[in-house]
Amino acid sequence: MSLIKKKFTEYIRNLQNEICTALEQIDGKGKFREDEWQRDGGGGGHTRVIEKGEVFEKAGVNISTVHGELPDPIKKHFNVDKGWFWAGGISLVIHPENPMIPTVHANFRYFELYDDKKMTRRSDGWFGGGADLTPYYLWKEDARHFHQTFKNACDQHGADLYPKFKKQCDEYFYNSHREEARGVGGLFFDYLREDDQRSLTDWHAFTEDTGHAFIHSYLPIVKKRMNAPYNTKQRYWQEIRRGRYVEFNLIHDRGTLFGLKTKGRIESIFMSLPPRVRWDYDFHAKPGTREAELIDVLKKPREWV
Amino acid sequence: MSLIKKKFTEYIRNLQNEICTALEQIDGKGKFREDEWQRDGGGGGHTRVIEKGEVFEKAGVNISTVHGELPDPIKKHFNVDKGWFWAGGISLVIHPENPMIPTVHANFRYFELYDDKKMTRRSDGWFGGGADLTPYYLWKEDARHFHQTFKNACDQHGADLYPKFKKQCDEYFYNSHREEARGVGGLFFDYLREDDQRSLTDWHAFTEDTGHAFIHSYLPIVKKRMNAPYNTKQRYWQEIRRGRYVEFNLIHDRGTLFGLKTKGRIESIFMSLPPRVRWDYDFHAKPGTREAELIDVLKKPREWV
Repeated sequence: MSLIKKKFTEYIRNLQNEICTALEQIDGKGKFREDEWQRDGGGGGHTRVIEKGEVFEKAGVNISTVHGELPDPIKKHFNVDKGWFWAGGISLVIHPENPMIPTVHANFRYFELYDDKKMTRRSDGWFGGGADLTPYYLWKEDARHFHQTFKNACDQHGADLYPKFKKQCDEYFYNSHREEARGVGGLFFDYLREDDQRSLTDWHAFTEDTGHAFIHSYLPIVKKRMNAPYNTKQRYWQEIRRGRYVEFNLIHDRGTLFGLKTKGRIESIFMSLPPRVRWDYDFHAKPGTREAELIDVLKKPREWV
Repeated sequence: MSLIKKKFTEYIRNLQNEICTALEQIDGKGKFREDEWQRDGGGGGHTRVIEKGEVFEKAGVNISTVHGELPDPIKKHFNVDKGWFWAGGISLVIHPENPMIPTVHANFRYFELYDDKKMTRRSDGWFGGGADLTPYYLWKEDARHFHQTFKNACDQHGADLYPKFKKQCDEYFYNSHREEARGVGGLFFDYLREDDQRSLTDWHAFTEDTGHAFIHSYLPIVKKRMNAPYNTKQRYWQEIRRGRYVEFNLIHDRGTLFGLKTKGRIESIFMSLPPRVRWDYDFHAKPGTREAELIDVLKKPREWV
């Protein structure tokens, strides 16, 4: 295995451990269960999930390294007749019980393509990933903290990166059928290949650094909000909003649809779906409320830092 | 307006009234609210919804007649450069509160295409529709009653129809990513055009008759099960299974995706989504239970009559 794959495989395993340990520590009650799975075409993964914890109603932190012949839909996507691939990544979605704590998603991945079955001749390779925050009630300072943490990680690798990947995040996590963003954004990047300015090694370092920033971006927000009181109406609002999260993941999210098309493990893909959800007919936040304030922000992306 | 459009428009309005009256009568408490909406490109609809009724937790019965230039995604679908259309239909989804009562969906529609903007030269016209039943607990007699009612309606128009449309229903309402059917099926038909055996007028009569059969197919089941006791575990199971309903509608259902692509009214499209839903990680029915019995049936479609 090439050094870059070896290093990234170690990285996602360590990051999974680090994140799960930190989440268990905050939760106090919930413990991650781990399921190891094998992929028919090659490779597999380790899915870790907490359910009905004290703080986290449902949280999944998955890693996988899969390889083999490109599945047909992906060949079509890349416009190639034949090809082999290796893909490794970590993917997490955290749904807290308390509606004052935002939901968060993050994903960091490396992808290689080959011309030969033995996967010795790499024809392409790139990094991708990002993180985005989905509050139910908006605290501007939380959105600012989340963005600032990732901006700091980006800035070490060039001042051009945060503005670009922040914008891509706003564009990607968008429920076009509702004309509103999923949340307050964060970073989204893909196809980070060697170019005039940065080598693949540079992008590797960038991806690992943004991944390491995750804990610092999210856990301080959890600690700040986890003891905030909330009532059944606020919980109701959270469940309604979680419906929008489901809509995004099942209608628009490329990662989810990629997983379904390539016959990934359904339960690992769908760990992203919220535990309890509501769809009411024609539900709207009342003008002037904190709920309406959130919607205003989702209608038009802001600069947070 | 041509006679066939005029008659079908009257038909769906009358059927909506008939169904809503019957549902309100059974519910005793819930009353339909009606929202009239206009479509930007031409036409509009009447959406009627009950929420938090005594029997029906959420039930939507919609009619719409829309027309105008074919939206771009539809032009692409039909492989035409230009074209105009008229589409009228009734669509309903009923989610009862009691998990012993199945969820039901039905839809009956007529579609015309034209070469000219004035929509005087019809180039094509067809009927489509169907109905399918999604139980949470299986009573074979209920599935048999539902299928028998629609078989009787079909048989008046030819013995070939029920077997064909029953099979199409099993194929269509299938969650391929779960390798299980959405429910116990019913009828599904589309593109019913004039052919060697039947005129468009014949298909018109067929579609109206199957539409009229709906009340007789479903309401006796509601009456039979509405006073059945249930516990919180059975309600939990219903919410888990409703998640599969959402998955089908957002990932696979052509009607939903058509609505989103053509910028239909979101709240009318999504009235089909269940009111309360759960996604637990890797949830399975215990072998030997009534829950597992349902899954067995969903894994392999049966002949009910």
